[in-house]
Amino acid sequence: MYDTTRPNKLAFAELAEMVRRAPYHVWLGIELMTLGEEDIVIRVPWREEFVSSVKFGYAHGGVLAALVDLAADFALAAKLGRGAPTVDLRVDYHRPALAGEMRAIGRVIKLGRTIATAEGMVTDADGKLLASGRAVFLPPQD
Amino acid sequence: MYDTTRPNKLAFAELAEMVRRAPYHVWLGIELMTLGEEDIVIRVPWREEFVSSVKFGYAHGGVLAALVDLAADFALAAKLGRGAPTVDLRVDYHRPALAGEMRAIGRVIKLGRTIATAEGMVTDADGKLLASGRAVFLPPQD
Amino acid sequence: MYDTTRPNKLAFAELAEMVRRAPYHVWLGIELMTLGEEDIVIRVPWREEFVSSVKFGYAHGGVLAALVDLAADFALAAKLGRGAPTVDLRVDYHRPALAGEMRAIGRVIKLGRTIATAEGMVTDADGKLLASGRAVFLPPQD
Amino acid sequence: MYDTTRPNKLAFAELAEMVRRAPYHVWLGIELMTLGEEDIVIRVPWREEFVSSVKFGYAHGGVLAALVDLAADFALAAKLGRGAPTVDLRVDYHRPALAGEMRAIGRVIKLGRTIATAEGMVTDADGKLLASGRAVFLPPQD
Repeated sequence: MYDTTRPNKLAFAELAEMVRRAPYHVWLGIELMTLGEEDIVIRVPWREEFVSSVKFGYAHGGVLAALVDLAADFALAAKLGRGAPTVDLRVDYHRPALAGEMRAIGRVIKLGRTIATAEGMVTDADGKLLASGRAVFLPPQD
Repeated sequence: MYDTTRPNKLAFAELAEMVRRAPYHVWLGIELMTLGEEDIVIRVPWREEFVSSVKFGYAHGGVLAALVDLAADFALAAKLGRGAPTVDLRVDYHRPALAGEMRAIGRVIKLGRTIATAEGMVTDADGKLLASGRAVFLPPQD
Repeated sequence: MYDTTRPNKLAFAELAEMVRRAPYHVWLGIELMTLGEEDIVIRVPWREEFVSSVKFGYAHGGVLAALVDLAADFALAAKLGRGAPTVDLRVDYHRPALAGEMRAIGRVIKLGRTIATAEGMVTDADGKLLASGRAVFLPPQD
Repeated sequence: MYDTTRPNKLAFAELAEMVRRAPYHVWLGIELMTLGEEDIVIRVPWREEFVSSVKFGYAHGGVLAALVDLAADFALAAKLGRGAPTVDLRVDYHRPALAGEMRAIGRVIKLGRTIATAEGMVTDADGKLLASGRAVFLPPQD
């Protein structure tokens, strides 16, 4: 079901640099773990500022939404050679994200000429699915 | 089109306190501006850590997604007397969010017994629409 | 919150003709009721083939999804002068759609140069909200 | 990434009967092809009433949305022993669906106690992805 028709244009070091580049990425603390033909994986350390429930201590859905979008976008960037603006984002919340390192896996579902669709899955360190979703992107037209 | 059949259960000071309560909310810097029967508005000061594009300086979509979810959730909390977990979130990105204070407006679309749907709109300080979307919530069953 | 910056390019008779044109539209039985600067309304007579629940007699969500997409697309077509392909569609189901005429209201949320977002609301003949949602479209580039 | 923790409760003949049961299903002409632990597949013959573009002859997105929802719902029904109401539906359109038999594959992403998320993929007879998406369902509480 994943679109692996195009080879990666970015090497690990190049994508790893893109993952760390922006202030928001630095704040999240994300880091590239693996880059494959079908998926990319990023690691996300925990920060107390993720917490939206004082009582239960779980991370806010906006943080998980960001990880779904970033994983999807990096999977696409690996194929395109650079990032693409997000048109829209849809996220399903499966389990509370409690304190601990997380992973986000990104895969391209369809890389079209004008529109690309990619998927992001957020898990805890044991691989339990916390949130997952999709985003639509506009690939650069030049 | 909005569901205003139930009166607000929270007073301004109670909702304002909920808006500031959690570490993630404090990091975002959000603050309640208005609480009405049809909508609630929060104010969001700019932070450099929102930036995902070093070149263009706009905020990451994950931050805007969080604001859509929070505005929708607070609009619902005003009616329910407390927050409700998000089942899923969908966000459309309309314009780049450049440096400057933002607003997020929340409204309840349908408050059902087992499921509630609410909307969030994120604008700049001049009212220009930056992002908007919807979330589905699970109202407490007791 | 709706994008009414562009005047309608289609007159009522032209949009009404587009609404009736295709075999799927004819099967649905849809008909244009009103065309305004902010919204368009279509009427949908009931058909037994809409039913997905033999026990409860309500219409299938795919029929309501089609009406959300069509209303959103016609609202956009009124502004653009013609239809635009749907990139993605999101629909929330609020109440069972039982036998009886329905209405679908379409409005443009944001009409950008490369991407347009529009909304559709499906109600029963008394105006009760049955389903609502949004679609993203690709406006023609010529 | 798929939730296969629960065994199927329905046998092939039972699910096949559910697939053919309702008037809308009969109109679509859908038929169960396979039922596995991870996915279910339905077959969809072409009908001229699917067409929304007189010029290009492709099916309306509402038909594809219905197939995404139905495939997801049948995959869930296989695990639950019966269908569950759809809370919301999100569909991405990848390629025009031209005349010809289609397939729809359904898989459960997460089967929770109060909420279930499942996926549907619509392909042509050669396996080319036409549309795909997700729906959220409310599993019966008894």
